[in-house]
Amino acid sequence: VRTIRLTLQYDGTDYAGWQRQDNARSIQAIVEDAIAEIEGKPVTVMAAGRTDAGVHALAQVASVRLAHGIACDALVRALNARFPHDIRVTGAAEAEESFHARFDAVGKLYRYRLLLDPVASPFERRFVWHVARPLDLARLDLASAGLVGTHDFAAFQGSRSAVRTTVRTIVSAEWAIEPASPWSSRVAVFSIEGSGFLRHMVRTIVGTLLEVEGGRRPAEEIAGLLRARNRTRAGPTAPARGLVLAAVRYPGERPSELGQGR
Amino acid sequence: VRTIRLTLQYDGTDYAGWQRQDNARSIQAIVEDAIAEIEGKPVTVMAAGRTDAGVHALAQVASVRLAHGIACDALVRALNARFPHDIRVTGAAEAEESFHARFDAVGKLYRYRLLLDPVASPFERRFVWHVARPLDLARLDLASAGLVGTHDFAAFQGSRSAVRTTVRTIVSAEWAIEPASPWSSRVAVFSIEGSGFLRHMVRTIVGTLLEVEGGRRPAEEIAGLLRARNRTRAGPTAPARGLVLAAVRYPGERPSELGQGR
Repeated sequence: VRTIRLTLQYDGTDYAGWQRQDNARSIQAIVEDAIAEIEGKPVTVMAAGRTDAGVHALAQVASVRLAHGIACDALVRALNARFPHDIRVTGAAEAEESFHARFDAVGKLYRYRLLLDPVASPFERRFVWHVARPLDLARLDLASAGLVGTHDFAAFQGSRSAVRTTVRTIVSAEWAIEPASPWSSRVAVFSIEGSGFLRHMVRTIVGTLLEVEGGRRPAEEIAGLLRARNRTRAGPTAPARGLVLAAVRYPGERPSELGQGR
Repeated sequence: VRTIRLTLQYDGTDYAGWQRQDNARSIQAIVEDAIAEIEGKPVTVMAAGRTDAGVHALAQVASVRLAHGIACDALVRALNARFPHDIRVTGAAEAEESFHARFDAVGKLYRYRLLLDPVASPFERRFVWHVARPLDLARLDLASAGLVGTHDFAAFQGSRSAVRTTVRTIVSAEWAIEPASPWSSRVAVFSIEGSGFLRHMVRTIVGTLLEVEGGRRPAEEIAGLLRARNRTRAGPTAPARGLVLAAVRYPGERPSELGQGR
């Protein structure tokens, strides 16, 4: 039995998220069903991040155990031939037999994209939150700095969570304006890298930071929210469409920084 | 009666093109129906370029005559509230009463985007032709230079055309690699600006240029095709999805160069 490490991209717009569900279309079901056709029997595919409904991935990592001897490059071609166009596998590689995409991950990089233009570009609409106003990035950076470090992020956790601990380590949290796009849209992007993330954590952080930016909360509020550990005091959850799982890091690896350059 | 000049963006993927048709969804029908709701009676909207099925627009220009006194900024909001998300109006302005978006246009800028990455990005898939290989841009530029000037483009005209003349003037035709995108995709872009374009002209030019690039035709072939004026000798028509009407120019205006910067 081999363990294969897959790198996946998807436009999450038309999916109920990564995780297989009974009555909804999931990325996991598509990926598992395509691999099962090759393997000749059902398989389980584990992903580093169980992205929510509507959330995208630029470099999701997944692991699967296979008995079939198909070469990795042939597997990439065979899966892309079976997947719908909004899901692609960009790489497959042999991994150590014990490799588990979720349990072995030591870091993740998420990006949250906000469209500042007054009118929402038809070309960006699936991949941004349209805030339709300029943003004070200096104020956002100042407030975001309070997130860096090891904290209890219970205040930023979505409901329906059952996790062992709500303590996570954030190594960077920064705002930038994206370079000019072919669609000439002005997009702000929040990049946050950490040891792991609670359910809805990035989206709740973005929703809260925008209230700080708009002046409805003081910049020091983030520290207070972390101390209070009370979800009802944080801001609204930003829409899923702006969120992208950009990279996953494993022991001995640097984050792949996909999307930063080529 | 006022004449209003509209600037429109659309993702053409799910449309049969600009022009209203009996049994297909068109951009024109959506725009006319939304304006008719405001005007209180049917209107005719003329566009600078009658983009084909699947072709996009970053700055299509359209004109309409209105009796209603709605302010231009209110018209923008009212139309965007009625349009589906893949069509947006980015601007509306009073024009001279005689202004006609199609007949008055003196230049158009089209872009054709080609995705070079081996795997087709789910984020770019609606807006590129996936050629999945590197391209020799120097060779493409050399061949494209033969298009510049005033020529009879009958060889690059699609079928089902009924135009007075097939002579057009091309002022520039250039290849470039797009700046890094958030999706880290490598995209080549062909920008062609001219006095006007025949049906399928840009797509047939791109299909032919790619045969030159791949070595199946000599670089000098373009001049020969223009002389021969025979469509059957030109290359295949590149897919609609890669084509974008980027800007339209009117007398006394420079092309707006939307998409080049901010």
